[in-house]
Amino acid sequence: MIKPQTLKGFRDFLPKDAKKRQFVIGKIREVFECFGFDPLETPALEYAETLLGKYGNEADKLLYLFKDNGDRNVGLRYDQTVPLSRVVAQYQQQLPLPFKRYQIQPVWRAENTQKGRFREFLQCDIDTVGTDSPLADAETIDCTLTTFRTLGFSNTTMLLNDRTLFDTQNLTKQQIIILDKLDKIGKDEVIKQLIAAGRSDAENLMEVLAAAKPTDRLSQVIETLKNQGYKQEVDFRFAPFLARGLDYYTSTIFELTIAGYGSGSLAGGGRYDKLIGQFSGRDVPAVGIAFGFDRMIEAMEEHNLLPTEDTVTQVLVGVFSQETLAASLATASSLRSKAINTEVFLENGAKLDKQLKYADRKGIPFVIIQGPEEVAKGVVKLKDMKNQSQEELTVNQVVAKLLSS
Amino acid sequence: MIKPQTLKGFRDFLPKDAKKRQFVIGKIREVFECFGFDPLETPALEYAETLLGKYGNEADKLLYLFKDNGDRNVGLRYDQTVPLSRVVAQYQQQLPLPFKRYQIQPVWRAENTQKGRFREFLQCDIDTVGTDSPLADAETIDCTLTTFRTLGFSNTTMLLNDRTLFDTQNLTKQQIIILDKLDKIGKDEVIKQLIAAGRSDAENLMEVLAAAKPTDRLSQVIETLKNQGYKQEVDFRFAPFLARGLDYYTSTIFELTIAGYGSGSLAGGGRYDKLIGQFSGRDVPAVGIAFGFDRMIEAMEEHNLLPTEDTVTQVLVGVFSQETLAASLATASSLRSKAINTEVFLENGAKLDKQLKYADRKGIPFVIIQGPEEVAKGVVKLKDMKNQSQEELTVNQVVAKLLSS
Repeated sequence: MIKPQTLKGFRDFLPKDAKKRQFVIGKIREVFECFGFDPLETPALEYAETLLGKYGNEADKLLYLFKDNGDRNVGLRYDQTVPLSRVVAQYQQQLPLPFKRYQIQPVWRAENTQKGRFREFLQCDIDTVGTDSPLADAETIDCTLTTFRTLGFSNTTMLLNDRTLFDTQNLTKQQIIILDKLDKIGKDEVIKQLIAAGRSDAENLMEVLAAAKPTDRLSQVIETLKNQGYKQEVDFRFAPFLARGLDYYTSTIFELTIAGYGSGSLAGGGRYDKLIGQFSGRDVPAVGIAFGFDRMIEAMEEHNLLPTEDTVTQVLVGVFSQETLAASLATASSLRSKAINTEVFLENGAKLDKQLKYADRKGIPFVIIQGPEEVAKGVVKLKDMKNQSQEELTVNQVVAKLLSS
Repeated sequence: MIKPQTLKGFRDFLPKDAKKRQFVIGKIREVFECFGFDPLETPALEYAETLLGKYGNEADKLLYLFKDNGDRNVGLRYDQTVPLSRVVAQYQQQLPLPFKRYQIQPVWRAENTQKGRFREFLQCDIDTVGTDSPLADAETIDCTLTTFRTLGFSNTTMLLNDRTLFDTQNLTKQQIIILDKLDKIGKDEVIKQLIAAGRSDAENLMEVLAAAKPTDRLSQVIETLKNQGYKQEVDFRFAPFLARGLDYYTSTIFELTIAGYGSGSLAGGGRYDKLIGQFSGRDVPAVGIAFGFDRMIEAMEEHNLLPTEDTVTQVLVGVFSQETLAASLATASSLRSKAINTEVFLENGAKLDKQLKYADRKGIPFVIIQGPEEVAKGVVKLKDMKNQSQEELTVNQVVAKLLSS
């Protein structure tokens, strides 16, 4: 016997959770399409050289790399921005720019799982490629805020910064990554680490950044958002210490937070005007954001924004004997033809009690009972499992009732 | 510069194709849920021992196996039946039986790509676990035929057989795999290979199988399908040579064909009453089917059953100057709030011609033009890109028109 187990950091989603995920994906997709983003899918496996060196040294260690059966060096998708950049370079002749796409696929990272991090998780990205207009940056933020409002959140804030602010202070990548930990490790520790990383002026640097003004680009983004009715300091906020971990960002960066949610940002992204050039040989400006799907689900759970049904099934059609089987199956077919999610109890002739208990355990809200008596009268009994009431109805009446419930 | 390329056997799906895939997935999901199948998701990576030895020797060679960073032997999902079997064993305390689930996820096989086969492809499965009732076999077939009808096909036939027929003839696994190639290599070649595989009675064997009668189980499945209005020899057919390649099937097997479609079966499955026992220590009967998503898309393409729009976007809002920008963005927000998929032209002040050309190249059906004159009058110009007509409307009138178009 083989022990049934999942790998550490990997998860099964049983129906109740899988349903919630489908619900959220459906909502997200609607908003993304509403903003004119088209779907894109890329492979789970890429050539290793496509992935290596794009995210920074620390990230390279988290890549799932291996040799395939043909001895090629390959790696599992680590994010959706690098595959998008490859796609833009590879199909540049057939993609009208700006190219706006969304992508909702799993990514894999060999993370330390002790921090509640997962090694396989879903990312939901929107990106706009081929324009350096601040309007694209603002639209990315607008679409993100709209998505979270559509999901039912009322307390999201987008933090904004511009990486070029750090250039004026000659910050190295290593120093930017230290700065990025400010929320987690606190100011004193950041200063200590910055000094260790060669910034003896760390204390002064922190003061200079704290007093920084938004760049020209950020000012335009902020102006556009205000024009659209978003409130500064409430819906969005200039955050001069915001750094983001990945190497490829070039100017605007942003991160979505929710008041009272402790597990970090729910979405993050920015502008990466130099990444696509690594594949295409000429720079193509781009901006985008990735939604952390697991954290969204977790935050929605905390705010009671998710459906709670255990099953998609609305009604269980009981089956009581060989004689009434054909009638039960016909009832099920009728209900299904009206798009009512219907399960048939598949063991012919089980006791009523057993069938009701099954519906109860599965959380199916209604059960249809159709014995020889009901078949003779051309009716069924519809049992409401919640209030335990029961009524005699024709199948058409059942359809009307379930469609309106 | 890194050459932008996909691995052989792996595919990008650009918006036009990705849209088609989403459309089909949406339809399939609806039918699956209508039959009371709940969603399930399992990880892309499993312990290698979970996968090895379940599919047969030939399949084992096609597994993507590697050592992860923690030196564990892991493998990519090869199908969805083995992960389901692991899930049922792992969570048996919390899953009421029968457990009915659907699963729509990619699988990976290191196939020879020269036959037009892919190394990454989507599978769509339904399975019913925990009952050996022939009603479950019949329902699997009913749901499959209903799915294909819902997608618009009118010429599907389900081939049925029972593996126990082969047991009565003492066929080995190797001999069953030879038999499975009958459609591809023809009767003479099958007989030749069977003789080489130790069946000197191959010719007689073929005659015996040709004259075989459906088993008791198959007869009950057939009776149920007929009761539900399915026509024998049209919607389904007893096919005594049908074998299926995988090791794990124990009795009923089935395969869906479409008249005139040359690339093989579109769905295949059967009953596997001994697979879950390999994980749980006690046998749990199960039956299911996997839909070959790529072939479905290909066949739907041939039958013109797929949407043909290039983009999800219904209207492009042009942007003409800094002065009218706020009005254009407000128009876009109004349209989006009515769930009209709206793209804003993101480069402030581009020439009208350039903006129309962009809409045309992207296949966006309508363009909104809103210059200083229109802003002053409180209207917009709506241009129909197909018939090149143009009319002056309020934003509310645009909403009404686009919602009804």
